[in-house]
Amino acid sequence: MDTKEIFLTKAEVYKPSLCRKETAPIAMIAPFMGASDWEYKKICDAAELSSMVLGKGDKICLDFGDHQVGYLHFTITPKEGLPDAPAYIKLKFGERICEIAEKFSQSDVSAATSISSSWIQEESIHIDILPQRISLPRRYAFRFMEIEVLDTSPYYKITIDNVLCESVSAVDMDTIKPCGGIDSTLDKIDSISIKTMAECAQDVFEDGPKRDRRLWIGDLRLEALADYETFQNYDLVKRCMYLFAGTANEDGQVGSCLYVQPQPVADRIYLFDYTLLYVCCLYDYYMETKDMPFLKELWDTAYRQIEIALQRVDENGLLPDSKDWDCFIDWNPNLNKQASAQGVLIYTLKRAKELANILGDTARAEESDRLIRRLSDSALQFLWDETSGFFRSGDQRQISWASQIWLVLAEILDPQQNAALLKRLMKTNPKINMVTPYLHHYFVEALLASGLKEEAFLHIKNYWGGMVKEGADCFYEIYDPQNPLSSPYGTRAKNSYCHAWSSTPCYFIRKYLDK
Amino acid sequence: MDTKEIFLTKAEVYKPSLCRKETAPIAMIAPFMGASDWEYKKICDAAELSSMVLGKGDKICLDFGDHQVGYLHFTITPKEGLPDAPAYIKLKFGERICEIAEKFSQSDVSAATSISSSWIQEESIHIDILPQRISLPRRYAFRFMEIEVLDTSPYYKITIDNVLCESVSAVDMDTIKPCGGIDSTLDKIDSISIKTMAECAQDVFEDGPKRDRRLWIGDLRLEALADYETFQNYDLVKRCMYLFAGTANEDGQVGSCLYVQPQPVADRIYLFDYTLLYVCCLYDYYMETKDMPFLKELWDTAYRQIEIALQRVDENGLLPDSKDWDCFIDWNPNLNKQASAQGVLIYTLKRAKELANILGDTARAEESDRLIRRLSDSALQFLWDETSGFFRSGDQRQISWASQIWLVLAEILDPQQNAALLKRLMKTNPKINMVTPYLHHYFVEALLASGLKEEAFLHIKNYWGGMVKEGADCFYEIYDPQNPLSSPYGTRAKNSYCHAWSSTPCYFIRKYLDK
Repeated sequence: MDTKEIFLTKAEVYKPSLCRKETAPIAMIAPFMGASDWEYKKICDAAELSSMVLGKGDKICLDFGDHQVGYLHFTITPKEGLPDAPAYIKLKFGERICEIAEKFSQSDVSAATSISSSWIQEESIHIDILPQRISLPRRYAFRFMEIEVLDTSPYYKITIDNVLCESVSAVDMDTIKPCGGIDSTLDKIDSISIKTMAECAQDVFEDGPKRDRRLWIGDLRLEALADYETFQNYDLVKRCMYLFAGTANEDGQVGSCLYVQPQPVADRIYLFDYTLLYVCCLYDYYMETKDMPFLKELWDTAYRQIEIALQRVDENGLLPDSKDWDCFIDWNPNLNKQASAQGVLIYTLKRAKELANILGDTARAEESDRLIRRLSDSALQFLWDETSGFFRSGDQRQISWASQIWLVLAEILDPQQNAALLKRLMKTNPKINMVTPYLHHYFVEALLASGLKEEAFLHIKNYWGGMVKEGADCFYEIYDPQNPLSSPYGTRAKNSYCHAWSSTPCYFIRKYLDK
Repeated sequence: MDTKEIFLTKAEVYKPSLCRKETAPIAMIAPFMGASDWEYKKICDAAELSSMVLGKGDKICLDFGDHQVGYLHFTITPKEGLPDAPAYIKLKFGERICEIAEKFSQSDVSAATSISSSWIQEESIHIDILPQRISLPRRYAFRFMEIEVLDTSPYYKITIDNVLCESVSAVDMDTIKPCGGIDSTLDKIDSISIKTMAECAQDVFEDGPKRDRRLWIGDLRLEALADYETFQNYDLVKRCMYLFAGTANEDGQVGSCLYVQPQPVADRIYLFDYTLLYVCCLYDYYMETKDMPFLKELWDTAYRQIEIALQRVDENGLLPDSKDWDCFIDWNPNLNKQASAQGVLIYTLKRAKELANILGDTARAEESDRLIRRLSDSALQFLWDETSGFFRSGDQRQISWASQIWLVLAEILDPQQNAALLKRLMKTNPKINMVTPYLHHYFVEALLASGLKEEAFLHIKNYWGGMVKEGADCFYEIYDPQNPLSSPYGTRAKNSYCHAWSSTPCYFIRKYLDK
């Protein structure tokens, strides 16, 4: 076996056996259009479903009371006659009620976005033999489930009962104590963020359990941080790290995301920042566990990401502003990423240098140190604009939230300067703003790194608290407080309402407050 | 165990193990609207499918070359990228091309008929892991299969290959030699009728493998007759007879049809003629096999059907013309069934009498004989109309094809009179005509019983030959030569194009010609 095969074999060893719980629906509900968005009202207890005889065209909606990731089971029984034809029923699953209530036109569903309509959680199934206990083969992420009887026959109707979701997760929510009593909003944010992380912790740390179940490095790093303050499921982090190492390309570069089924394979997506965050993820893991053998095992793979990234650095010690590379940073399509990328590289080198020192890898420690100085100098020389008091990015000298955040995290300026920069950023509020909870995470990290703890937690309460006010069971992939009904995908049916990269408030709360 | 439990246990003993064959599609085809109906043309060999890369909206249609009843398997492989989202595909199965080509409106599908739209053979399935070998769990009856890619994602497409139908039947078509050389039309009719019977011979003798998979006595009797001249799969006939006996109601009456899954249960449908045909089915079985223990075992159950039927006979020795009972005979909604029912009862009594004599059951032999005479006299006195030369039925004294057929089969008149009556029937052609192949069977039986062999086979060539000319792979549930595009169900998608009761030409050909 070569090294990569060994990594994949080890990844298999750390495969979690999932924790399974049965959850029954709590109520039958009906959606309606409220003042600004879809809402729902309770019709009756879910227990009453078993006595409801359903015929062609009947439709009911169940509320499971909280977000679930799992497998659906129910019993279908013929009533008022013998079943002379199959039952044909349609099932719709929604993380939020809008997914159930909204009628999506074909054009919404077909909208030319990067997200396939095949993620929309609905099935039409024929049931030939009745009564029968049905177990749907696919996993769904949902709180609400609609059942519509497309047809039975003129000679019989049906009842549906004993509906159960066999919820799955690599971790057990019941093992975590509430942090309790910090502040009612932060308590709530903490528990929802833990739930979000737990729902994404499956066979690997998934991006979002409803959609895009790939393992992404950027998400992994944030989920791992949340995990360390909660479940401490180190095995799952190890598994994910091994998977990336085992699926690196011939040049040694890890993919930014990978597929686990039918066998592990990296997608051919190489995001500049995600690749580097593999190093940071290893750094976090070592700091948490002090697992020296593991650090030694993956150190070469990790450092290789830096070597590859350095190939992009120009003679001025700067990452050039060109269109021939991908860097994620955030989903704002107008964001110029040159400065942010420079920040990510310095941020990563600082962690690599520390690991190299721990490992006694003097050569890499010295190389890292030299690079940090050179890249930092270049950032100050070419990106810092003394007049505006902001870092600028790209040919257009763009001022954005992202550039400030990442160059603060790179700690080129001293903490006081960084704190002043962040305050200036909040006050000036540049037009090129933050779009994803992912970048909001790094903003909070930057505030904390700059001693602005009060501002950091105020931001968590404002931003994640906005989702809580909306009644979120888990934190969303996308949340724009100015435009809560929006979807970048043409229809909210494609949005993910439980997304790994939004799960870090529990990390901040438990690491910086709950002690 | 009570007697009924014993019958059901024995039914289980005779459960067939199905013969399985793999059939691959032969061609990719395209439907088009021809001069009078949908037709299709070959696009290429089916082998070329594996090299076709299919994306969102692509649709292809495969031709399996002949009618299949079975389970579908295929391999789906991602192409031109990694599958970042499930593949969502729609599959449609058709016994005839119209089921694939015709766009059925919701009103067609929802038409208020007795046949549920849930029988329409189409599925939309999500495939989460690719590549994957897919095995669809449901059984389909089809020759044509359409595959439509509803969505993949912008990042990948798919190929579909190694499509196979795992065809199932209780019998093996390959064990039957063609009757050969009688007449090219009859040879073809013979082989299609055997195919039809074989496709319906499954776990029981099904009504139609696409739709209504119940076991009906009327169909069973005809399938058994076809079986005796071909596969001689006596075990399956025994199994079906035991199932009816084991599911008889508390009064001892067998249901007209029954369900096998999840456990045997008779439907609460009691058709006067179907119940009696249980006796005729036992008679046929004994005449074919001389299986005396089986005859003895079921004799009481069989004779009980006659006793129950006799409760309807009035003081004139006549079945009254009332609306409080069901008798099938044919699907012509305008048919008055009084005279036909009288014919079925006499026809059955004659077979019961013969069985009673064989068994030495003198009491029932004498009772049958007395009843035959009394019911025949009444038929002549009250139903026969000397003026028109036809039997009449009901208050309106209706003259129909069905009444003549069944009272000829009752053999009340002598063979010469019956032959003259049938010739008069063909010449006069009363408006209340034959609708189903089921009644056409009994018409042919009546012709043969009256010495009109030439007319019998001419009728087979005309009627079943009409379906052959249409390109039938199997014989249909409904065939009206005057109106071949019709469906009593609002859409032809619900029609059954392989139906047990249309499978008897092989019986007539092999019993009366091929010797």
